[in-house]
Amino acid sequence: MTVELISVGTELLLGNIVNTNAAYLAEQCAMLGLSCFYQTVVGDNEERLTETLKTALERSDVILLSGGLGPTQDDLTKETAAEVLGRKLYMDESSKKRLQEFFARRKMEITENNWKQAMVPEGAIVLANENGTAPGIIMEEGGKRLILLPGPPGELIPMFESAVFPYLAKAQPGVIYSQTVKLCGIGESKAETMAADLIAKQKNPTIAPYAKVGEVHLRITAKASVEKEAKKLIKPVVKELKNRFGMSVYTTDERVTLEQAVVDLLLANHLTVTTAESCTGGLLSARLTSVPGVSEVFKSGQVTYSNKAKHKLLGVKKPSLDKYGAVSENVAKEMAKGAAAASKADVAVAITGIAGPDGGSSAKPVGLVYIACNVCGKTKVKSYHFSGNRSKVRENSVVAALTLMRQCILEYYSEVTFR
Amino acid sequence: MTVELISVGTELLLGNIVNTNAAYLAEQCAMLGLSCFYQTVVGDNEERLTETLKTALERSDVILLSGGLGPTQDDLTKETAAEVLGRKLYMDESSKKRLQEFFARRKMEITENNWKQAMVPEGAIVLANENGTAPGIIMEEGGKRLILLPGPPGELIPMFESAVFPYLAKAQPGVIYSQTVKLCGIGESKAETMAADLIAKQKNPTIAPYAKVGEVHLRITAKASVEKEAKKLIKPVVKELKNRFGMSVYTTDERVTLEQAVVDLLLANHLTVTTAESCTGGLLSARLTSVPGVSEVFKSGQVTYSNKAKHKLLGVKKPSLDKYGAVSENVAKEMAKGAAAASKADVAVAITGIAGPDGGSSAKPVGLVYIACNVCGKTKVKSYHFSGNRSKVRENSVVAALTLMRQCILEYYSEVTFR
Repeated sequence: MTVELISVGTELLLGNIVNTNAAYLAEQCAMLGLSCFYQTVVGDNEERLTETLKTALERSDVILLSGGLGPTQDDLTKETAAEVLGRKLYMDESSKKRLQEFFARRKMEITENNWKQAMVPEGAIVLANENGTAPGIIMEEGGKRLILLPGPPGELIPMFESAVFPYLAKAQPGVIYSQTVKLCGIGESKAETMAADLIAKQKNPTIAPYAKVGEVHLRITAKASVEKEAKKLIKPVVKELKNRFGMSVYTTDERVTLEQAVVDLLLANHLTVTTAESCTGGLLSARLTSVPGVSEVFKSGQVTYSNKAKHKLLGVKKPSLDKYGAVSENVAKEMAKGAAAASKADVAVAITGIAGPDGGSSAKPVGLVYIACNVCGKTKVKSYHFSGNRSKVRENSVVAALTLMRQCILEYYSEVTFR
Repeated sequence: MTVELISVGTELLLGNIVNTNAAYLAEQCAMLGLSCFYQTVVGDNEERLTETLKTALERSDVILLSGGLGPTQDDLTKETAAEVLGRKLYMDESSKKRLQEFFARRKMEITENNWKQAMVPEGAIVLANENGTAPGIIMEEGGKRLILLPGPPGELIPMFESAVFPYLAKAQPGVIYSQTVKLCGIGESKAETMAADLIAKQKNPTIAPYAKVGEVHLRITAKASVEKEAKKLIKPVVKELKNRFGMSVYTTDERVTLEQAVVDLLLANHLTVTTAESCTGGLLSARLTSVPGVSEVFKSGQVTYSNKAKHKLLGVKKPSLDKYGAVSENVAKEMAKGAAAASKADVAVAITGIAGPDGGSSAKPVGLVYIACNVCGKTKVKSYHFSGNRSKVRENSVVAALTLMRQCILEYYSEVTFR
């Protein structure tokens, strides 16, 4: 089956917002095994929307429309779609009741134009909106499926997950199942080369590499008649990839982020952690603390931007700062050791570098970063040369620090185990 | 003139990447006063790209194509566009030279397929790519303009800015000029209400409000024959908005962010600043240190996640933690005072709250956040109730902290001045 996305909204045409809905829906459709050949953005204009819809109905099996379901006169996606399929609108009692409840809960009065949102096309499947006032609509006509979704991502995503994904999964013969092997501490081209033969001979399952900042994700997707069968196809490939990439694999669970994996590793080993950041200015601790439940392992962190702060708060020796400079292997090491001593945490990670745009020299260019990790008294330091602007250097530094933390903890425990 | 965007790339159709290029180009076109009615995403497929191009040529004056200019067989945007306009490709000597230099600088060998990127359609304007290997292409044909840009944003944006924007500005009769009045500390609906009469009677210039996290931006856009004239139209509107919104206006400069405005205010008043963060875990210091040159004012910050850290590092009294809890007005105040004392910074800001998903209660629900700001010994505390998930609560807290810092500094100095 082929699918086509139509996003309706003047704010998209004006570039006021980025079309994240299209990326989300496209990814979900790919997971469902639907082939997507076109995505279109069109404004809240009856004539142009009608034309776009008719073109889509000619060339695609499923059309996912999002946006333009609001209560104002501008919003005309539902009216136009109904018109194109020659269907009348009627007041849907369950949608009306939901609207009333929605407003009552918020102690708000319903204005006349709100009732428009309870009108639905004849013969449509109505999808309840748990997070807003516009219901979703599915219309089937001559083998084609027209699906209308509200524009706000906070309404669209839950509705797609709970109602549209299962609906399309049922319509699509067979099932598509994906699993992602997530790697850190390995470059994209090296990862691709190491998996090149597997990627080349791929058919079912397929393997697709995706590069993220400091990470590579390998997504394995299989198609089969039932989920169990698809999983069976994927299993040996995941095993082979884990075999090849060893310690670089930090998870095979789609939902687990690198920071989550690091926090899980700390939790599993009953380790506490602290951070000492210079150029990243708190980005690393912010990322760690984005993980719910991190308070079990993370008690405090330091942002030591000035040399004075590095000396006073972390005990970095003044002669080290004078002799090697704040961006040096020695200072990174002393920062990590000092942070561990001051906080009594089991793991301490320190970042010092030149994020730019100023402050670089030929000996120490912008992008030079030292990261040190101390695990139970043992310190490892690594140097990095990141390219890109201030923001990119900082972002890469944080991912490198998470990767180094993970590596140091794993190494420490394998030594402990094998001792 | 009308413009239409066509983004070429399978990775967009699969949802692997978000189409930020379309948002960027759409915004630029709006600034140029071009009307954009359609945006399309299509894959690297000759037949579908040809069809999409032909449709666009029928209905739009300018077509901006991005992506598919790479060196591989898959990339066929240039070949397809030339074919549609009936033009042959030839080897462009200046592009060839640029390619050679690009590879020489990187000490890389040119492979055979790279030469494909130096081939350009007959009669085309060739745009040098300062950041990659694919040149941009402009073709004019029967009053239509077809513009090909490389897909990577790091190549597309500089090329658009330096070559395409001036080219289109020349082609478009008259000029469009925009200025943005950025507000903080005021809700979207209140801001819209306060400017409703101005927005309603808008024609030239127009006023459009945009809501960001914790901010509202009002963009004023004027059209005139020359830039000077457009600026003259905008000036009284900016003045009126500054008048109405007073202290809530933090800048009228498009490029200045809220964190930049706060850092500028600190620099102007020769103030140093420190942060003491609980639920935001370093996000505030990370945002402040995203501003180049911040080291003049920011020396250190603390992430005090646990009660023990709040006591030990900031001197928050144990009885306060026991009696009021870590998320309380009293503790926020003590955190700010303690941070100021420990760091000797002139300004200290403290954040403590419940980011969720766990840790909430009926008395202290998820989203409850206290922020305290101490300026030269004077402390102000405010409480907030943010909605949304962990990430939203944290993000809103950071913006609220920046807003409060700005407010406290301005108030302190107006008092000093008027005393």
